[in-house]
Amino acid sequence: MTKFQPADPDYAARVTDSFARQSVMDLIGARMTRVTPGETEIELPFRPDLCQQHGFFHAGITSTIADSASGYAAFSLFPADASVLTIEFKINLIAPAAGERLRAVGRVLKPGRTITVAESEVFALKDGGEKLCARLNATLMCLQGRSDMAVPG
Amino acid sequence: MTKFQPADPDYAARVTDSFARQSVMDLIGARMTRVTPGETEIELPFRPDLCQQHGFFHAGITSTIADSASGYAAFSLFPADASVLTIEFKINLIAPAAGERLRAVGRVLKPGRTITVAESEVFALKDGGEKLCARLNATLMCLQGRSDMAVPG
Amino acid sequence: MTKFQPADPDYAARVTDSFARQSVMDLIGARMTRVTPGETEIELPFRPDLCQQHGFFHAGITSTIADSASGYAAFSLFPADASVLTIEFKINLIAPAAGERLRAVGRVLKPGRTITVAESEVFALKDGGEKLCARLNATLMCLQGRSDMAVPG
Amino acid sequence: MTKFQPADPDYAARVTDSFARQSVMDLIGARMTRVTPGETEIELPFRPDLCQQHGFFHAGITSTIADSASGYAAFSLFPADASVLTIEFKINLIAPAAGERLRAVGRVLKPGRTITVAESEVFALKDGGEKLCARLNATLMCLQGRSDMAVPG
Repeated sequence: MTKFQPADPDYAARVTDSFARQSVMDLIGARMTRVTPGETEIELPFRPDLCQQHGFFHAGITSTIADSASGYAAFSLFPADASVLTIEFKINLIAPAAGERLRAVGRVLKPGRTITVAESEVFALKDGGEKLCARLNATLMCLQGRSDMAVPG
Repeated sequence: MTKFQPADPDYAARVTDSFARQSVMDLIGARMTRVTPGETEIELPFRPDLCQQHGFFHAGITSTIADSASGYAAFSLFPADASVLTIEFKINLIAPAAGERLRAVGRVLKPGRTITVAESEVFALKDGGEKLCARLNATLMCLQGRSDMAVPG
Repeated sequence: MTKFQPADPDYAARVTDSFARQSVMDLIGARMTRVTPGETEIELPFRPDLCQQHGFFHAGITSTIADSASGYAAFSLFPADASVLTIEFKINLIAPAAGERLRAVGRVLKPGRTITVAESEVFALKDGGEKLCARLNATLMCLQGRSDMAVPG
Repeated sequence: MTKFQPADPDYAARVTDSFARQSVMDLIGARMTRVTPGETEIELPFRPDLCQQHGFFHAGITSTIADSASGYAAFSLFPADASVLTIEFKINLIAPAAGERLRAVGRVLKPGRTITVAESEVFALKDGGEKLCARLNATLMCLQGRSDMAVPG
């Protein structure tokens, strides 16, 4: 894995503050469990109200944590006064998202001044083992000079 | 638009029953508002607990209704004893998902015995006008002989 | 279809000139057959040296004309002194690319100052009929102030 | 990297034979340089007739070798009497495909009886150094009981 140098020494606080303002994470019960330069991890315990018709995590919920994991991986490398925007993502749902917990790991593949490419892997924890259940690939945009906190809600 | 002939005359009941078993739709407050052969519509009123850090609908929530809209568009054309699986999707987040309500319209582009390609457009309703805010393209798989209700949860 | 207003009145000459500099189009025998604001069309007659192992057009060749069709659809709306860059694309290979000729139609879905979303449909002409064989969705970037002709080769 | 067990002991001959029947590879001058279970490598020297308007490899040509690299990575794990079909792929064009040679490495991410997910990385070799210039993620289908050689061209 390539190691990245963060542009902002306070990147970790900036990422966790922004994550805390994502109200949907409270709704579904997701927590950010790790932030390093260019990498974040989000965990989501199973709940029966997060499911599709067969009782597995809904693909949209898997996408929710995978999108934020890769988005904040990108954001961790941005300057202090910049915002992040997901332009697009693709997700492959490789195995049923079944188990006690999901864990999404987002990593920057290629940082850039305007465009950053990042990826997330989502693992399903079941009976003590982990299994890759989804893979997301995202294109993120850096909005220079637009602080993440200043963007009107 | 091409018109499709449903393989199962009771397709609409089968789709709405399955949608009703997607517990996440209750959690977020989404409703299926239309089902025709090869097309469905899902609406989602704004709530402050569905948001990303800037107060817009989170991309994962937009994806949740867009994925179900295209998935059920495909499912509406399947035989009565089949299940649907999303293999992958790509979503372009074209404009901020800001407004009083999202409306996702899913349509089958190409039906197939095993693989169906479907797409969703998501519109944000704001101040009486609608704006395209996302476009999703999905590959769905038909699991023949595996009733949607029989799949273990 | 939404109608677009081109920023550059000479958009058509700019597009066809740039296309003429894509050497790979000569190699494979592709021709641009139509340019309107936000839309282009490229045709490619069948040749036995453009194929995958079963004698159909190779998916990469289908992608080549579909990528250029959507890229030049975007480029047609750019200012005179800008270049276009494909950031990413996704292509669904919906049916075998079999027949006497492929026809790719690229259309802008959402123009933007920096990011434009465009799509291409590819049709295979066979025995007098046309069939949708591929669908491409692309994210394009506008490089302002960098003339397409000035970029070093 | 996970190691895979090939279903067919003659997988390497089957892959290279099929690749040799992809006529487009001759046209562009690509060679398969490595096959192991679940992984292949394709190299493509620069030629001035493979380019887009700025003299770099055209994204469609990059896609051509990246699609075949991941497709044959999947195919290497298939049983002897099966064919491979690319359902869809997404490619991120991370850096200009500029240099003396491209090298595409395709790897299976998740094999499956019907659906296999595979990825390719494309590197541009320039002035003795290599740089990641593209990343492709593909969904492949295994057509059981349809020998790759028997499919009509």
